[in-house]
Amino acid sequence: MRVVVPYAASEPKTRLADVLSPDERAEFAAAMLDDVLAAIQATGHEPEILATEPVAVDARVTVDQRPLTEAVNAVLADAGKETPVAVVMADLALVTPDALERLFAADGEVVLAPGRGGGTNALVARHPEFHVDYHGTSYLDHLEIAREVGAEVEVVDSHRLATDVDEREDLAEVLIHTDGRTYEWLNDGGFSLSPDGGRVSVVRR
Amino acid sequence: MRVVVPYAASEPKTRLADVLSPDERAEFAAAMLDDVLAAIQATGHEPEILATEPVAVDARVTVDQRPLTEAVNAVLADAGKETPVAVVMADLALVTPDALERLFAADGEVVLAPGRGGGTNALVARHPEFHVDYHGTSYLDHLEIAREVGAEVEVVDSHRLATDVDEREDLAEVLIHTDGRTYEWLNDGGFSLSPDGGRVSVVRR
Repeated sequence: MRVVVPYAASEPKTRLADVLSPDERAEFAAAMLDDVLAAIQATGHEPEILATEPVAVDARVTVDQRPLTEAVNAVLADAGKETPVAVVMADLALVTPDALERLFAADGEVVLAPGRGGGTNALVARHPEFHVDYHGTSYLDHLEIAREVGAEVEVVDSHRLATDVDEREDLAEVLIHTDGRTYEWLNDGGFSLSPDGGRVSVVRR
Repeated sequence: MRVVVPYAASEPKTRLADVLSPDERAEFAAAMLDDVLAAIQATGHEPEILATEPVAVDARVTVDQRPLTEAVNAVLADAGKETPVAVVMADLALVTPDALERLFAADGEVVLAPGRGGGTNALVARHPEFHVDYHGTSYLDHLEIAREVGAEVEVVDSHRLATDVDEREDLAEVLIHTDGRTYEWLNDGGFSLSPDGGRVSVVRR
């Protein structure tokens, strides 16, 4: 199985602009990428980064400047019928080898791990006609595409895979559930949990 | 195993006040309770409602007007050492029999299903000294309490169990992932998905 990690290297994580500067957002995105790559490697797979520009990491990097959907569909077409392809987003800071094993081991011709808010945070494609469309509510679109091409779908129910880190409140999930590089980066940056009556949020000292 | 569902019958779901009237919030909470009870029944267990006042539903209801933590701890103490107790929150509108089976089948003396934002959306207690504390970041507190009493912990990684429906954006999860009474209630109430560039949200007609 190929395991591809798309990575937008330029101006990442704009929805964290209320808490992080542009340079900090780039560092933060790189820390999350490192944690995702380490979790993939711990499952015995070699991650391949699909980046919009060269990235200095200890993994194979393919540069493709096209938008995410087109770049991933090129990988799926290139892999052909024989090779399953997993696509794992680079901002899944909560990901663990266990969560990835559930994704990789699931039986479907198309395996989907929905993200909160209707995205598709990770998938495995084993059907030659399946293709992606990351615009809009991509999880529902991917269910529909799988139906259209006659691919059997399995959905992986995982909080860790559902949690892409895009917004301030997502930082709390990192502080609660992880202890990797992303956690260290937030901790060093002065972030801590701040219970406020409803869900816990974060504050920065 | 006893399966207890705490239910605050009076003025539920205040954090949905920006989209639902008080009467609507009560109806909405009742629809979620029905879906949770149906999912529990589909696993072959008989749910027991632990309510702050009498509730008209087709299940055993125990009324306990004390705060959540005290009421649940009374159930745990009453069950004693022999009977495992599951506590499943009434606002888990995404819950399925499969997600509950993972919770019930997990091996730990304490099994925790974290909610987004650090809550504890469901748990199973099989250790006589474990007790709950739902104030603050209860998931972290429950990990600590389990450690203190020497109980082995297992954590269930489930987006469905992690999604308690408290805020407007959570309604999108219901519309994306469910088709039960809660979905019907939202649909009848004019709610639909509204992609807005980031995560999908909801609009009301």
